[in-house]
Amino acid sequence: MLINEVTKMLRIKHPIIQAPMAGGITTSELVTSVSINGGLGMIGAGYLNADQLRNEIKMVKNKTENFGVNLFVPTEFNVPKAEIDKTKEILRPMKEWLEAEEGKDLPTAKSAMQTFKEQVQVVIEEKVPVCSFVFGMPDQDVINRLKKERIIVMGTATTVKEAIEIETNGMDVVIVQGSEAGGHRSTFRKDSENGLIGLMSLIPQVSDQVSIPVVAAGGIMDGRGLIASLVLGAQAVQMGTAFLMTDESGAHQVHKQEILETTEDEIVLTRAFSGKFARGIQNEFITQMKKYEQYLPDFPVQNSLTQSVRKAASVKNNKEYMSLWSGQSPRLSQKQSVAKLMETILNDAQKILNK
Amino acid sequence: MLINEVTKMLRIKHPIIQAPMAGGITTSELVTSVSINGGLGMIGAGYLNADQLRNEIKMVKNKTENFGVNLFVPTEFNVPKAEIDKTKEILRPMKEWLEAEEGKDLPTAKSAMQTFKEQVQVVIEEKVPVCSFVFGMPDQDVINRLKKERIIVMGTATTVKEAIEIETNGMDVVIVQGSEAGGHRSTFRKDSENGLIGLMSLIPQVSDQVSIPVVAAGGIMDGRGLIASLVLGAQAVQMGTAFLMTDESGAHQVHKQEILETTEDEIVLTRAFSGKFARGIQNEFITQMKKYEQYLPDFPVQNSLTQSVRKAASVKNNKEYMSLWSGQSPRLSQKQSVAKLMETILNDAQKILNK
Repeated sequence: MLINEVTKMLRIKHPIIQAPMAGGITTSELVTSVSINGGLGMIGAGYLNADQLRNEIKMVKNKTENFGVNLFVPTEFNVPKAEIDKTKEILRPMKEWLEAEEGKDLPTAKSAMQTFKEQVQVVIEEKVPVCSFVFGMPDQDVINRLKKERIIVMGTATTVKEAIEIETNGMDVVIVQGSEAGGHRSTFRKDSENGLIGLMSLIPQVSDQVSIPVVAAGGIMDGRGLIASLVLGAQAVQMGTAFLMTDESGAHQVHKQEILETTEDEIVLTRAFSGKFARGIQNEFITQMKKYEQYLPDFPVQNSLTQSVRKAASVKNNKEYMSLWSGQSPRLSQKQSVAKLMETILNDAQKILNK
Repeated sequence: MLINEVTKMLRIKHPIIQAPMAGGITTSELVTSVSINGGLGMIGAGYLNADQLRNEIKMVKNKTENFGVNLFVPTEFNVPKAEIDKTKEILRPMKEWLEAEEGKDLPTAKSAMQTFKEQVQVVIEEKVPVCSFVFGMPDQDVINRLKKERIIVMGTATTVKEAIEIETNGMDVVIVQGSEAGGHRSTFRKDSENGLIGLMSLIPQVSDQVSIPVVAAGGIMDGRGLIASLVLGAQAVQMGTAFLMTDESGAHQVHKQEILETTEDEIVLTRAFSGKFARGIQNEFITQMKKYEQYLPDFPVQNSLTQSVRKAASVKNNKEYMSLWSGQSPRLSQKQSVAKLMETILNDAQKILNK
């Protein structure tokens, strides 16, 4: 059960993928540690430009041959200037109070698309073994070019319809993101907007409808979650929060501490930080922005607008204005090394299988 | 794995409980069929008065000794007359169009409490083997009286805090309701209002924190869901939608057909029908009420106000104004007999265990 089509395809010893967490969490140390310990480390490249991505890849390549890169697929957005000005006005008092710098230039749909093209080019030039996507469907040309280079292509789905589209477009693997997952929702179809499906429902329904391998993501932290996912029809798991908590991750110490101290009922969905729904620990920023939530600019504009707030809060160790992404299983989290986490999961999984 | 503390406690052959679905779905035929086939049938008694409940119990007792009753724990509510009048005004055009009868007297907090007391009395007098509760915590006196009669008492939790409270109050079993579950949310603690936790997260976190047996509910439809739940730490499953679809259930044919034809992304949470959040298939009623949703009276007042709408829609086979409760796994549903459903689940479960 622990050795299957997807472990062979990804050339990994154990069916465990480290979720690509963008924004500095997936350090090269984290990515390489996961791969060296028999899983698949993934660089969360969503916010990196081409040069930064190439650097990350080179650092990872110094220590391991096997790893992956995750990219954000850009989608059309058109945010009116009035909306931006209004949001800046809302954010101003916090920025002053936190002594946050002025924000940089805001992304445009055109600049986002250009960055994406350059990222794909780097992935191809650097012969990255695995490339996964979130937030959308890359166009057929991108998928074909990657596959021509024998790069394994993985898409991320939150509903059966999205999973079918990923298979139909020729991707090799579908990652199903359950409602339990921390961080950004990967929903990309308009008709999937009610797509907060728990893994108990999502894994078997997707497995029945697609023939490519399924990887389960969301709330999985230990051997129980691994084996349960495989029983439901997945061939591997992708774990975010569990790896975020490791010594090797670049997550802020305050972020790790908050996950240790929070409970599953204090973790909410919000679009306050980035303009796209994401799951994290309730704090003052989410509370304050609640009443404006539906009027905030779309991703990635809102993300840029709040960047200096989050950055200033991090410098000041102020948990109330940081984005404290977490899945719904914080009580299962532990601060430990990647090696220890992997060992514990596999030992526990083996014990369950031996019962 | 399939024989454990909870199967012994409930005196069942298989770790499968039929979810108590109120409002006519859990016919005595359904309840007895489940028990005769080795599971635990449950009478959904929430909307029954004492005489109706006694009749149901007697009909079930004609065919089986082992079964359970589920009760709604009443909570304080105080709905201003203005709110009721406004909602009546909103509902009036639908009622006219559907030729719905005028509604009956609305429940008061006092009448709801009186009904509950009488229901508990019936459960005791009829020596019902198992009594489960939703929507709240019965007071200590009720729990003590049931336990004194050696009735197994089960509470329903949506967060770890609720599960701990159920254990602390001396109940024997905790049913954990994942976000995948169809029908009403059982959340009862104010600090659990963000409690839409997927079972992948909820089962292991509750199992780690309580020592009474855990039963998993939400989106479980087959052998995969059963074994996955046991792997995550549950000792049994409670299944609603799967049993709603059986020949023996009293669900409207239109309701069954809609579950067969819907998909997981068309199933939403709404308080439009009853004033309490519940999961069902999106339809015209939910859409029309959306904009008033936060102003609607609390449960059970809103439930009474919409009763004649739902009843008239049922008579006219009009799916757009019925409450089409469903969990998040409709693609796994089949019309079949209880015997066939139980047999398939257990065969599939055994195959997974033999792998």
